[in-house]
Amino acid sequence: MVQIGVLGLGNVGSAVVELLEKDRDGIRRQLGTDISVKKVLVRDLGRARIEAAAGKITDRADDILEDDEISLVVELMGGEQPALSYVRKALSRGKSVVTANKEIIAKYGEELAYLASEAGVSLMFEGSVGGGIPLIRPMQTCLVANDISMVMGILNGTTNYILSRMDESGCEFEDALREAQELGYAEADPSADLSGADARRKIAILSSLAFNAHVVPEHVEACGVEKIAMADIRYANELGYKVKLVGYGVRRKGQVELCVAPVLLPHGHPLAAVRDSYNAVLVEGDAVGTLMFYGRGAGGMPTASAVVSDVVEAIRAKDAVRPPFSCYNRLGVVDPRLVVSPFYVRLQALDSPGVLAFISGVFGHHGVSLSMVLQKSRRNGVAEVVMVTHPVQKGALQDALAEMEGCSQVPEVSNYMRVWE
Amino acid sequence: MVQIGVLGLGNVGSAVVELLEKDRDGIRRQLGTDISVKKVLVRDLGRARIEAAAGKITDRADDILEDDEISLVVELMGGEQPALSYVRKALSRGKSVVTANKEIIAKYGEELAYLASEAGVSLMFEGSVGGGIPLIRPMQTCLVANDISMVMGILNGTTNYILSRMDESGCEFEDALREAQELGYAEADPSADLSGADARRKIAILSSLAFNAHVVPEHVEACGVEKIAMADIRYANELGYKVKLVGYGVRRKGQVELCVAPVLLPHGHPLAAVRDSYNAVLVEGDAVGTLMFYGRGAGGMPTASAVVSDVVEAIRAKDAVRPPFSCYNRLGVVDPRLVVSPFYVRLQALDSPGVLAFISGVFGHHGVSLSMVLQKSRRNGVAEVVMVTHPVQKGALQDALAEMEGCSQVPEVSNYMRVWE
Repeated sequence: MVQIGVLGLGNVGSAVVELLEKDRDGIRRQLGTDISVKKVLVRDLGRARIEAAAGKITDRADDILEDDEISLVVELMGGEQPALSYVRKALSRGKSVVTANKEIIAKYGEELAYLASEAGVSLMFEGSVGGGIPLIRPMQTCLVANDISMVMGILNGTTNYILSRMDESGCEFEDALREAQELGYAEADPSADLSGADARRKIAILSSLAFNAHVVPEHVEACGVEKIAMADIRYANELGYKVKLVGYGVRRKGQVELCVAPVLLPHGHPLAAVRDSYNAVLVEGDAVGTLMFYGRGAGGMPTASAVVSDVVEAIRAKDAVRPPFSCYNRLGVVDPRLVVSPFYVRLQALDSPGVLAFISGVFGHHGVSLSMVLQKSRRNGVAEVVMVTHPVQKGALQDALAEMEGCSQVPEVSNYMRVWE
Repeated sequence: MVQIGVLGLGNVGSAVVELLEKDRDGIRRQLGTDISVKKVLVRDLGRARIEAAAGKITDRADDILEDDEISLVVELMGGEQPALSYVRKALSRGKSVVTANKEIIAKYGEELAYLASEAGVSLMFEGSVGGGIPLIRPMQTCLVANDISMVMGILNGTTNYILSRMDESGCEFEDALREAQELGYAEADPSADLSGADARRKIAILSSLAFNAHVVPEHVEACGVEKIAMADIRYANELGYKVKLVGYGVRRKGQVELCVAPVLLPHGHPLAAVRDSYNAVLVEGDAVGTLMFYGRGAGGMPTASAVVSDVVEAIRAKDAVRPPFSCYNRLGVVDPRLVVSPFYVRLQALDSPGVLAFISGVFGHHGVSLSMVLQKSRRNGVAEVVMVTHPVQKGALQDALAEMEGCSQVPEVSNYMRVWE
C-alpha cells in the first residue's frame, strides 16, 4: 500500500482524488499494490468537500510534507508560492512529486529535477502542458532516438475557442470571449490566456524537453490575441489561412527561436484544423518526421487523467533510471527582430492619391517588399489596406510600421502577424 | 555496457543499427550506460550491408539467442515464422524482446506477454503500430486512469495515400495505386494493404490495449478499399464526407464492435483531415475525452525511432513493474450484421419508370428507410443512383442489396459504406 498526500483540492485535485478511488482495481492490476490518499491539504477547512476526501482534510502542509508514511506528494495548488516551497521540501525529504503546475516547472524545472535526482525520487509533470494529452512522457521516452528541430503547438484552449468562434460564427473578439467565459473555458480574469503568458510557460516546458536545455518563460517572446479583429480572420481566410495563437521553439543552427504569437497558418497545416478549445502539439524529429498530439488541453478530469498516470508511473518506476529533464545544452536564443518570414499587415490609410506610393516607399526604404496588396473597405476617407510581405526580417518590418504610424497618411497600423510557410 | 542482438537487417533493422550508433551520446546520458549491437542476424551473408553492421553479421539465429552476454533481442524480421520461434526462445532464456512485428503481437501477444512476465523481462512493441507515432506506451502508461470506450484509426499509409490522391487529383484507384508503388509507399504485392489485412492486425493490437482483452485479427471484420471508385469519393464530397479506410474498436455494453472498412467521415471529423501517407489514431477515454495521435505510420526511420525508444525503455526499466499487456477482460464481439448505422449506397439501375419505386419497395420490405436519394449520370439506359439510409442494421441492408442485385432492374450494386455519425 502506497500512501500519498495531495496539496490542493480544487477542480483538478478533486478529480484526482475521485479517479484514484474509482480506478482502485485497475491500479492494483497495474502495480500489484494499492494507492491510498492519506491526507489532502486545503486552504479553507470550512468549505464543502467531495466525499472521497472525507476525514483526510488538513490545512497544515507539514501534516503531509513531514509525514514519513507518505512517499509521494501530488501538488495541484497552482501558482508559484507556496507551491514551490512545498515541492522543494517534499523532494528534499525523499518524496516523489507529481505536479500539474506549469509555473514552477517552467521557471524552476531544472532546479527541481536536480533535487529529485539527488534524492533518487521522481518528479513528474505530465499535467502541466496540454491537460490529459500524453506529451511529456512521450517526449521524454518515445523520441530518445531523435534530434528534435521543432516543437509547435496550440497550447491555450481559451484563445483557441475564441479564434474558432470568430472564424465560424463571424462574431467579434469581445463576444467570443464572453461566450468562452459563460461556458467556463475562460476565467473571470482571462489576462494570462489572452496575453499569451499561459502558452509561454507551456512552450518553455516543451522546448526544454525538445532541446535538452532549460528554457524559461523569459526566453520566449510573447504576444497575445487582444489585437485580433474579425477583419483579420476574414482576410486570412480570403488569403487561404487560419489565424491561430501558437507557441513554438525552432532550432536554427545552434540557436532556438522561441515565440508565442498569433500566426497565419495555411489551411492544409495540421494545426489549422484544430478547433474549439482543443490543444495540439506538433513535433519534428529527424528520425520520426512530423508527429502531432491532440486533445483537451484543460479541465479537471483531463488534467487528472494525466496526474493519475504520473502517480502510477512514479510508483511503478521504483529504482529504475528516471527519464531526465536534461538541461545539458546551452542554446542561444534567436533575437526576435532577426527572424525572417513573410508577414500579414492590416492598416488604415488615407484614401487619397499617392498614399499607396508613400506606403511602398517607406517599406522599400526598410527593405520590405510586398507580395500582395488588397485595398478593402473605405469609410470616411480612410481605406483599410491589407498586405502580405515577401520574407523579411521582423525588425525591418517593425521599423517600417513604426515610421508609417507617425505620419498623417497612415492613421493606424491595426495589426501584423507572421505568415507561416 | 548492454549488449543486444538484432534479428533482421532490412529497412527497419538497418535504420535501428544506424540510430543506435548515431545516438550513442544521448543514450549514455539517458541511461548512464552504453548500448552495443553485438550481433545481427541476416538471411543471406553475401549481400552488401550497412557499415555500422560490419563484423557483426551472422546467419545463425542461435549465435544471438544462445549468447548469454546478449540481454536484449530486437526482432525485425517480420512475418510469423521463424520470428515467433526466435522471440519465444529469447524470452524463455531471460532476454528482453523489442519487436515491430504486428503479426506475432496481434496473434500471440497474450502468450508472449506471459512468457516475458514469467521470465521477468520486457516485451515491447511500440513499432508494431503506427511506425514512429508514440501510441503503445502512451496507451499503456498515460491512460491508466481511463475507461476507454473507443479506439479508431487510419492505420495504413498506402491506402490513405491512394484515397487522398483520388480525392485531390481526381484520378482513379489503379492510377493512384501505381503512383504509390512508384513512390515506394506500396509494395510490389500490395494485397495486405488493400484488403485491410494490415490495418486489421494493428486495430487488433490497439483494441487489446484499449479494452484489456486479447483481440486477435480473426475477431475483426475486415473489408478493403478495392471496390472504391472515383465516383464514390466525388459523391461523398458532395454529401460533406471524406472516404477513409479506418479500423475501430468500440465498446458497446460489455461487447466490442471490431471492424476495418472504408467509411464516410464528416468533413469536421479529426481523421477526415489526415492526408497523404500519414496515420492517425483517435482514443476516447472517460476522463481524458478525445485524443488523437498523428504521424508517419511506416518507413524505416520512423519505425526505427520507435524501436530504439523501446530498447532504451527496456534497459531503463531494470526491475520496475512493467506496463502490462493485460488480457483479464473477456469481451464478446458484436455480430457485424447487428451494427446500426446510416449507410451510403451506390448502385446502377435501369433508367425506366417504376425502378425507384421497386428499389424503395425492396428496402422497405427489409426495414431500410432512405434519408437521401440522388439520381446521377445516365448512360445506355442505366442510371447511377446514390442513396444514404437512415440508421439501420447492417444485416438488413445487406439482405436488401442481395435481393436487389438478383433483379433485372438493378444490374449492379456498385458499393456501400458505413456513414460515420
